[in-house]
This record gives sequence, structure tokens and C-alpha cells, in this order.
Amino acid sequence: MTMEVFLAEMLGTMTLLAFGGGVVANVVLARTKGFNGGWLLINFGWGLGVFSGVFVAAQSGGHLNPAVTVGLLANPDVTEYAPGVAITLASTLLYFAAQMLGAFLGAVITWLTYRNHFDADGNDAAVKLAVFSTGPEIRNKPWNVLTEVVGTFFLVFVIARFGDTPHSLGPLAAGLLVLAIGASLGGPTGYAINPARDLGPRIAHALLPIKDKGSSDWGYSWVPVVGPLIGGALGGLVAGAAF
Amino acid sequence: MTMEVFLAEMLGTMTLLAFGGGVVANVVLARTKGFNGGWLLINFGWGLGVFSGVFVAAQSGGHLNPAVTVGLLANPDVTEYAPGVAITLASTLLYFAAQMLGAFLGAVITWLTYRNHFDADGNDAAVKLAVFSTGPEIRNKPWNVLTEVVGTFFLVFVIARFGDTPHSLGPLAAGLLVLAIGASLGGPTGYAINPARDLGPRIAHALLPIKDKGSSDWGYSWVPVVGPLIGGALGGLVAGAAF
Amino acid sequence: MTMEVFLAEMLGTMTLLAFGGGVVANVVLARTKGFNGGWLLINFGWGLGVFSGVFVAAQSGGHLNPAVTVGLLANPDVTEYAPGVAITLASTLLYFAAQMLGAFLGAVITWLTYRNHFDADGNDAAVKLAVFSTGPEIRNKPWNVLTEVVGTFFLVFVIARFGDTPHSLGPLAAGLLVLAIGASLGGPTGYAINPARDLGPRIAHALLPIKDKGSSDWGYSWVPVVGPLIGGALGGLVAGAAF
Amino acid sequence: MTMEVFLAEMLGTMTLLAFGGGVVANVVLARTKGFNGGWLLINFGWGLGVFSGVFVAAQSGGHLNPAVTVGLLANPDVTEYAPGVAITLASTLLYFAAQMLGAFLGAVITWLTYRNHFDADGNDAAVKLAVFSTGPEIRNKPWNVLTEVVGTFFLVFVIARFGDTPHSLGPLAAGLLVLAIGASLGGPTGYAINPARDLGPRIAHALLPIKDKGSSDWGYSWVPVVGPLIGGALGGLVAGAAF
Repeated sequence: MTMEVFLAEMLGTMTLLAFGGGVVANVVLARTKGFNGGWLLINFGWGLGVFSGVFVAAQSGGHLNPAVTVGLLANPDVTEYAPGVAITLASTLLYFAAQMLGAFLGAVITWLTYRNHFDADGNDAAVKLAVFSTGPEIRNKPWNVLTEVVGTFFLVFVIARFGDTPHSLGPLAAGLLVLAIGASLGGPTGYAINPARDLGPRIAHALLPIKDKGSSDWGYSWVPVVGPLIGGALGGLVAGAAF
Repeated sequence: MTMEVFLAEMLGTMTLLAFGGGVVANVVLARTKGFNGGWLLINFGWGLGVFSGVFVAAQSGGHLNPAVTVGLLANPDVTEYAPGVAITLASTLLYFAAQMLGAFLGAVITWLTYRNHFDADGNDAAVKLAVFSTGPEIRNKPWNVLTEVVGTFFLVFVIARFGDTPHSLGPLAAGLLVLAIGASLGGPTGYAINPARDLGPRIAHALLPIKDKGSSDWGYSWVPVVGPLIGGALGGLVAGAAF
Repeated sequence: MTMEVFLAEMLGTMTLLAFGGGVVANVVLARTKGFNGGWLLINFGWGLGVFSGVFVAAQSGGHLNPAVTVGLLANPDVTEYAPGVAITLASTLLYFAAQMLGAFLGAVITWLTYRNHFDADGNDAAVKLAVFSTGPEIRNKPWNVLTEVVGTFFLVFVIARFGDTPHSLGPLAAGLLVLAIGASLGGPTGYAINPARDLGPRIAHALLPIKDKGSSDWGYSWVPVVGPLIGGALGGLVAGAAF
Repeated sequence: MTMEVFLAEMLGTMTLLAFGGGVVANVVLARTKGFNGGWLLINFGWGLGVFSGVFVAAQSGGHLNPAVTVGLLANPDVTEYAPGVAITLASTLLYFAAQMLGAFLGAVITWLTYRNHFDADGNDAAVKLAVFSTGPEIRNKPWNVLTEVVGTFFLVFVIARFGDTPHSLGPLAAGLLVLAIGASLGGPTGYAINPARDLGPRIAHALLPIKDKGSSDWGYSWVPVVGPLIGGALGGLVAGAAF
């Protein structure tokens, strides 16, 4: 059971990052088919990456995100992480580990898939980092944290409300929500809204032999970890308190 | 019961405005990731804002809009605002209050989320107001009213028809309808189609200490209130009369 | 019963044209919010116009299109136009009349909604006609007919297959199919794929006092009538024969 | 039974290629309505082509792709190709033949639909080939193979997971997955992820009397056959092994 949950969560997060990192690569790296394809294209890639990853992670409930796990933990109405998966310290750490490992592997897959484009001329180092991890357009860490808090709050808060209205969209509901958060709240920081999504690939960026890669921007790396964890906890708390 | 309905409607409308205002901020404010991202991106932000907000507002039926409330009031086939919520003067005023408060709060959230970009150089005052409230491309108030009447008519009229065809899209049906109204009927005035969506944020614009903010354009403010209320009432009446 | 079917089909087609004509107006007329918004925006407007119109036309089965009616007529597996609506000469003519009237009214609504923009400077006569009716990018009538045959064939053929695979998308399935036909097969002629959609608004264009309107291009007007009728009949025949 | 499965798979793949080839024609050929419409438009055309084609191919289970057939073959959890269709050498070859023939016919339909634009000035030979078959932006065959392996792996792997999470999206799930793969993993090679999708139209390109058509680029033709077959087999194996 535990192994199956770990594997599902890991493979689901890997899928999310392969698609999410991939769409950024397609839009920002030189000489791709989707070069300069626009923000909505990026939003579709991440939104449908969630859609695909949640299908993959059926056995773990498809968190794919430590902030979602924390949000469930903070929500008094939630009694298990997935059908049959109790909320314990051990299971929480299991989710975190699977998410980090999956995000790391997804970033490696993105890099391999776009290898020719990482090696081609015409990309500066900041663009290469953007395929892996987020960075703000205007660097102002307290406000950047707040932006990540807001985006993740709505992610966890709205997901907590999916069960109260009948529908049969399955994982598409979460996918469209993430598309929306990107379109609407992603403008300042690029919507990490997920510590694993940002930190796992940042570690991959630091370790992989990427050509002319430049800094991994560790000075910013805590922002897309702390902001989403706060926002996720708030989202779970408010959803549990309000309804 | 009453408190839960008020809270649901308020939080749902807050979610709608945070997403809707957010996508406009992302497209029009300087130095965002989505700058100049196009009209379809804006339509997705508002459409999926409705999608998300209707999930949040399950207990109130997810009106999120005084024109929808008025449309239900005008429709003789409708007997309650939501399961267990009777149509009375008190409940109507409760919905209006929740919608106005929610829209105001959503606009405040948008402003906080994009705070760095409001403070950055390169935005004129009209652009900052556009994040909060609608304005017409060609100012001609009687025709602007008509455009808002038409958009809101179709909003309420088509929603009234959702129940006669089997589907299980849940809140996605309303979200796609709003996406469509924006794409198709939003070109002249920016599709308020919702008095609270426009007036609540306009009050926020007037009150908040936004840098170099300029006028809140009160001279136009009645158009996106009156037009949608007329259109919503017509939509409810025609749906009730025709079927 | 008859009156209800007529009304449903008429109001549904009116909704389709208000949205479909509206999105073209938004993209091509000067000084709109969606000016130059791109082909995908146009595809969304028409696709979700179908989505909305099919909901409106629940009682008539939501044909909204004489080519769909003809396709059902040609398909030996189909025994009624809608639950309880027999296939007779009278009911067929009733559908055609409702579709033509609805399309005409929808075009009038589009014109009223965008009235300021029709009157503004900067639109030539061809652009104004494009809001109402289709025209080919390369005028070569036999090939233009073929393009309309192909698009409408797939419309009717794929709709005929919706019932053999379980899903609960409701009217969204037809909406996405029309979005796809526009994206994929609409490039040469602008995808009328519907005689009423093209002819009803062309009559409106001829009758309405549109400023500086120019020709209604009657020389081309038979193409988007004949092509779709042939394509629809073929689609129904092949669907009936193949499965 | 056999004939019906063959016909369904053939007509479904024909539909996929008519839509998929069509959207590329619309975006790349001179003087179309969708010229330069962007990568997301192309992704929608292919994604909704899959959506439409899977509906058409209900009786065969809607593989539309030899890599999907191979993925099912490689997945120990899968016991038949479609309800009532056993996995045998004969049925496997039947699927391949239907897919190749359907893809060829779909490419012919695209060419006829856009005939005026193929004949018009302003298209070089490479652009004409792009309507039929994929080509990489940076030619490096081992890495191009890897990119196709990755895209097809996720196609088959995620499809194998559709059944473990409740939803009623029907063919839309596969359509959105293909949209996502295009957006995210299609940047380097144009995402064949389907040997029939690439080889069938390449044969059509070689045989059809296309004006000024140039080379069919046979030197690259094995890449979008071998890569997808490997990726599909891996996807099926991993899905079977992991869950």
C-alpha cells in the first residue's frame, strides 16, 4: 500500500513537471515550435499537466504538491489523504518525499526532451533557469511571498469545495483551476504555488550539466516554498472553518 | 443557514473578482508575465473565475451577481434561490450585500497580489482603473447600456436553460458561458454583465491608496449597474415565458 | 408542441448567431477590446455559441443548422428530429424556418451590440460584411464548395457518433467539435458549415441600415448554402451506412 | 465484427488527420484565415482531432495510433483492444492497416480542403510538407527520437491511468492529453507521437500531385515511427508494472 501511494504520487508529480517545465521550454527556448507562444499557452501546459498528473496519481489522491498536502492537514473536515491513506507524520513525509523526487525527475525529463534547444545558441542563462524554477518579474520578496500565498490559498480553498457541487469532471476540475490561477494570479511571480514544483527542479538545475547555465538563484528559492506552504495551510483552514 | 448562504455567496464573489481582476492586471499592467496576453486570456480568467467561484458558493447556488439574482426573481419557473433558500425581500438583499462585499474584497486581493506592478512605472491611471472596473472603448452611454443588456440577457437566459439538457459539467457550464460572452459580446464595453463585479471594485478603487490612481470614473458607473439589471430581468422573464 | 419546438430552435439559432457574429465583430471591427484577437478567439466564440445555443434549443434537439437537419434526414438510423418530434416534410420546413429566422435575429442583435463600432471610422465594407456572412480568402467557387462540404461532412458525421461512446459532456461535445472544425477546416472559407448561419445574416446585412455597408456579395451566397447541404447529407448517409 | 472494427479505426484516424493536417495548413499556408495563428491553435486542432476521431472510432476503442496499439499490447493489465476485440497478431495488423490507410486518406482530405492555398504563391516546399508530416526544428536524430519517445510514453502511460479515477469526459480526456503533449513536449519535433500520423501522410505527400512540392524528407521518416513505437511500448510496460 505505502509503496503504491509513494509511486503514484511520485509518478504523478513527475508527469506534472515534465509537462509544466516542457511548456515553458517550448515558449522561452530558442528555435522551438512554440517559441513566444504566449502566456495562455503556458497556462494550458501547466493546467493540463495537473490534469494528467492527477490521473497518474489516482492511488495517492493526486496531491502533487506539498502545499496541497499541508492544506488537507490543516483542514479539520479532511480525515485521510486518499481513500485508505491515514494522515500521520510518516504519510505526510512520504508525500513530501514523493513530490520532491517526482518534481526532480520531471525536470530531468524536460531537459532531455529539449536538450538540443538548451545547447543551441540564443538562450541566456536566466531563460534556461526559467524552464526549471520560477522567478519574479519585480523582485520584492515580501510581496512575492504574498503573491504566492494568495495563489496557493485559492488553489487549496477551491479544491476543498469541489465535493459540494455535483459534477463529473474528475481531474479536469483541478487542471482548469490551475490554468485559472496562472492566468489570473501568476503575473508577478510565475505561480509556483507548489514548493516541490519549484525546489525539485531548482536542485535539478544545480546538478545537471546544462550548457552555460548560470546561477540557480538560491537567494529566491525560499519564497516559492514558504509562500505556498502558508497559502495552502490558510486555504485548508478557511475551507474547514467557513463551511 | 442564513449565515452560511451569505458567507458562501460572499466568498464565491470574492474568488470571482480575485481571478477576474487578476487576469486584467496580468494583461494590462507593466512588467507582468502575461503582459499583452490578449483578449482570449482575459476571457479565460473571467470564465474560470466564475467556474471557481461557483464551486466556492455551493451553499448559495453560486449567483455571484445581482443580475443573476434578479433574473431568478423575474423567472416564474424559479421557486428558490438555492436548495432551501426562499425568495424573499430579505434573502434578495442578503445576496446583494454578499455580492457587493465579496466583489470589494476580491478587488482588494487583486491589488495586493499585483502591488509591485501597481507601483511600477509605465501604467497610466486609466490602465489601473481597468483592473477594477469596466469602461467602454467608445463612450456612448445609451448604446453602452444596450450592450450590457444584451450580454447579461444571454447570461441569465442560457443559465436558465442548463437544466433541460442532461450533462454533468457542473460549474464549468457557467464558466464557459461567461468565457463566450466575453469573447463575443464583450468587445464594446468589457462585459461587466454584473453590477457587483463593477461597482464593488470601483468603490475599492476609490478607497484604496493606489499609486497615481486618477479618477474612478463615477460618470460611467451607473451603466454597468443598470444595463445588467435590465438584461438579467429580461433573461429571466423570457426564459420563464418561452419554455 | 410544434410551437415550443419552433421557438426553441429559433431562440437557439439566434443565440448561436449573436455569439458567432459577435466574436467576429470583436476581432475585426475597429476599436473593440478584442481587435485582432486571433483565429482561436473566433473559434472559441463560434464553438461556445453552439454550446450555448444547443442548451437553449433543448426542446428541438438543438440542430441550429439546416445541414444538421438534412443530415438527420439522410441518416437511416435516425427516426426523429428530437424526442417526440417526427421527421416529416412539415417538421423539416419548420426547422428550416426557425433556423433562418433565428439566424436573422441573431445578426440583428450582433449589429445592435456593436453599433458604435459599425459607425466608427476605420472599417471598410468588406469587414462589415464579414461580421454577418462568410467569404473565401481565395475565391474559386468549386473548391470553396468542396471546403464547405468537407467541414459540414465532419460536423454531421461526428455528431452522429456521439451516442456510441459514453460521456456526459452534453452540448459541450458539439461546441468543441465546431471549435475544431473552425481551427482545422475553416481556413479557406471561414466555415459557414450552416446555410442558415450564412444566409440569414446576409439578408440582415442587406436590410439593415448599416453605415457605409457596401455589397452583400450575393454572387457567393449560394456556396455556403449548397456546400453545407451536400456535406450534411453525406455525413448522415456515411454515418448510417458505416455503423 | 472485424470489418466494423477496421472501418471504425480507419474512419477515426482519417478524422484525426483531416483535423490535424488541417490546422497546420490553416496556420502555415499563405492566405488562410488562421495564418500565423500560433502554437496553441495547432494544439487545439490536434487535440480536438483526437477528441473527434475517438468518437468516430467507438467500435475499435479509438486507438488511432499504432503506438497506442503497441502500448496496449505491452501492458499486461490489458486483455483486449476494445470490448470484444481480442489481442492477436491478426487484430494487431488489422489496426495498423486501418490506421495507415485512415491517416493517408485524412491527408488527402486536408490537401483537397486547402487546395487553393497549396496552389497559391507564397508557400515554400518545406511549409507544404509540414502540413503532412513532422520535422524537427533542430535536426539531431538520436535526440529527436528521444523527444518522440518521451511524448509517446506520456500519451500511452496517462491513457492507461484514465480508468482509475472516476470522470465522464469520454474522448475529451484523450483530446486534452494530446493538446497538453503538443503544448509541452512538442516544441522540438512537432509531436508525431504516432507512426501512422506521420508515415501515412508522408506517403500521400509523395504520391499526390502537389504543386512545387519538393522532397518528402524520407531521411527523417523513420524517426517519428521508431520513437513513438518505443515510447508507446514503454508507456504500456510502465503502466502495467507500476500499478
